[in-house]
Amino acid sequence: MSTPMIAFAGSPLDRADHLRANPEGLQGLMNASARLLRLEGLDPVIAEDGTIAWGSLADADPASELVFLGVRDERGCFAEVQPSLLGNGAPAGPRSWEAMQLLGAEDLAMYGGARSLVGWHARHRYCAQCGASTKLAKGGWQRDCQSETCKAEHFPRTDPVTIMIVEHNDSLLLGRQPRFPAKSYSALAGFVEPGETIEEAVARETMEEAGVTVRDVHYIFCQPWPYPSSLMIGCHAYADDPAITVDETELEDARWFSRADVADALEAIERGEAGEAFQCPPRFAIAHMLMRWWVEQGK
Amino acid sequence: MSTPMIAFAGSPLDRADHLRANPEGLQGLMNASARLLRLEGLDPVIAEDGTIAWGSLADADPASELVFLGVRDERGCFAEVQPSLLGNGAPAGPRSWEAMQLLGAEDLAMYGGARSLVGWHARHRYCAQCGASTKLAKGGWQRDCQSETCKAEHFPRTDPVTIMIVEHNDSLLLGRQPRFPAKSYSALAGFVEPGETIEEAVARETMEEAGVTVRDVHYIFCQPWPYPSSLMIGCHAYADDPAITVDETELEDARWFSRADVADALEAIERGEAGEAFQCPPRFAIAHMLMRWWVEQGK
Repeated sequence: MSTPMIAFAGSPLDRADHLRANPEGLQGLMNASARLLRLEGLDPVIAEDGTIAWGSLADADPASELVFLGVRDERGCFAEVQPSLLGNGAPAGPRSWEAMQLLGAEDLAMYGGARSLVGWHARHRYCAQCGASTKLAKGGWQRDCQSETCKAEHFPRTDPVTIMIVEHNDSLLLGRQPRFPAKSYSALAGFVEPGETIEEAVARETMEEAGVTVRDVHYIFCQPWPYPSSLMIGCHAYADDPAITVDETELEDARWFSRADVADALEAIERGEAGEAFQCPPRFAIAHMLMRWWVEQGK
Repeated sequence: MSTPMIAFAGSPLDRADHLRANPEGLQGLMNASARLLRLEGLDPVIAEDGTIAWGSLADADPASELVFLGVRDERGCFAEVQPSLLGNGAPAGPRSWEAMQLLGAEDLAMYGGARSLVGWHARHRYCAQCGASTKLAKGGWQRDCQSETCKAEHFPRTDPVTIMIVEHNDSLLLGRQPRFPAKSYSALAGFVEPGETIEEAVARETMEEAGVTVRDVHYIFCQPWPYPSSLMIGCHAYADDPAITVDETELEDARWFSRADVADALEAIERGEAGEAFQCPPRFAIAHMLMRWWVEQGK
C-alpha cells in the first residue's frame, strides 16, 4: 500500500540537524538571504497568492527568539518566538486552523512543523525540574536550564496518539464528542501512555471509550498534528463483539457505520456536507484518510 | 505476523483510567489491601523469589507523592515519588538496568511503566510555562500549575523514537556508537521530531547518521522503553545504494551485515557472547527483536 498525501507531512525543508550544534554554521546562514517565516503569534501570515508569507531576518522583533527550521535552496529558514506568545499558553487563533483550508501541501507542512516548535518554546520558558529560567539552544531544538546546579536539557515534545478504525461485520466503530458539529462522527483516539505499546493503547482506548474488545491491531499510516504537537498514529483493528458501552465522560455517542455509509460521508464532505448517516471529518484529518483507506480496501 | 514478546510490554495492570479523575473512587482503593510497588528511587526492589517486591501503603514515606498505577485483582496498585528523587534529575541506578535480566515479563512491564511515571514526576516539579510549582493531580497522570494566573496542566511525556533495520542485498545496515561495548552494533535510531511522520523520521535519521537513502519504510512493532520514557517504533526499510557516509558526531562506524552474520550474532548473544562478525543487542532491546524478525523473514 502506498501512503496517501497526509496533511502536515511532506515538508520540503532539509532539517539540517548537523547545523543545530554548530553555532558558526548557523550564524553563517543568518545572512541577507535567510528567510523568516511570518507568523502572528502562532498564526500563519498568508500572502495574496495563497502561499505562506516569508520575510527576512530584519523583519523579526528584536525581542523574539529565533528558531532554525531548516534549509531550502541553500537558504536558512527561521521562525520567531514573539514576546506576545509568552505566559499565555500560546493559544491558537482562528487562522491557525484555517491554514488547513488555505495552504498548499508543502506550505502546510512547513507551517505545521514551525507552529509546533514555536509553541513549545512559548510554553517552556522555565525548567520543569528546578523552576529556573531556560535558554534556547541548538538553533531552537533544545532549551537549557540556566541554574548552575541543575543544568537540565529540555527537548521539543512530540506526543504519540493512537487513532483507530475498528471494524466488525463490514462496519466501522465511530464516536462523537459533545463538542463536535451536529451529525459528526470520527475515529476513536487517545494518547499512548508510558509503559504501553501502540497496539496496547489502541486496545485500551477502544475498551475505555466504547467498551469494545479489539484484535489484530495494525498500523496504517500517521500524521504530525501541530495542535500543539501530536503524532497521530493511525491503526486498524477488528472487533468480534459489536456491543458498545459508551464512556459518557468522553463521548456523547458511539456506533457502527456500514461501508456504504462511510463511502457516502466521504463523498458528501468534499461538498462540505454531511452524508446520509453521518458527517465525517475533512480530508486534512487522518481520521478521514483512514476511512478512505478502509473504503478502498473493500473495493 | 504475530507480535513477539517485547520486553516492557504486556503489563497485567488495568490502568482504570476512569478512576483517575474520581477522587472518591481513588480514595476507596487506598485501603489496607492496596499494594505499593517498592522502589528505591527509580530502582526496583527485587524479592528473594525474583519477583518485584510490593508492600502496603503504610510502607510509603509520608513525604512521598503517590501515583496510581492501576488495578489488579481488585486491588489498587501505587508507586511513590520519593523525596530523594527530587532535584537531581532522577538518575538511574544500576539495578534499574539489571531489572531486564532479573524480572519476568509481567513484572518488567509493571516496573517499566511505573519507572517512567515516577521519573516524570521527579523531573516536573515546576511549571515549564511560568516557573511556579506544580501539584500532582488525576492520580499522578497530570500535574497542575499552582499559579492562579497560569493554571497550566502538564501530562506525562512519551517520546516517539524510530528505530530501523535497513536492508540492501540481503544485508542489514547497523551502526555502533563510541560508548557501545567492543564489537557491538545495533539498529540506527532517532527521535521523531515535530512536523514529521514516522516514515519521514526513519528516512531523515538514516540519511543523517549513515548517508543512506531509504524507500518502502514499514512499521514492524514497537516497545515502551522506560529510560526514561521512549516509545521505540520499530521499522524496516530498503536501500538501493549501499554507499555509507558515517556521521562521526553520532556514530563510530556503520556497515552492512549479511543475514548469516545477523543470525550468528543472535545465537551468540543468548550465550552472552559476540557473534563472528559483531555483537548484537540483548533480547530485551527492540533492535534484537527486529533483527530476529528479519532473520525469520528470510527463512
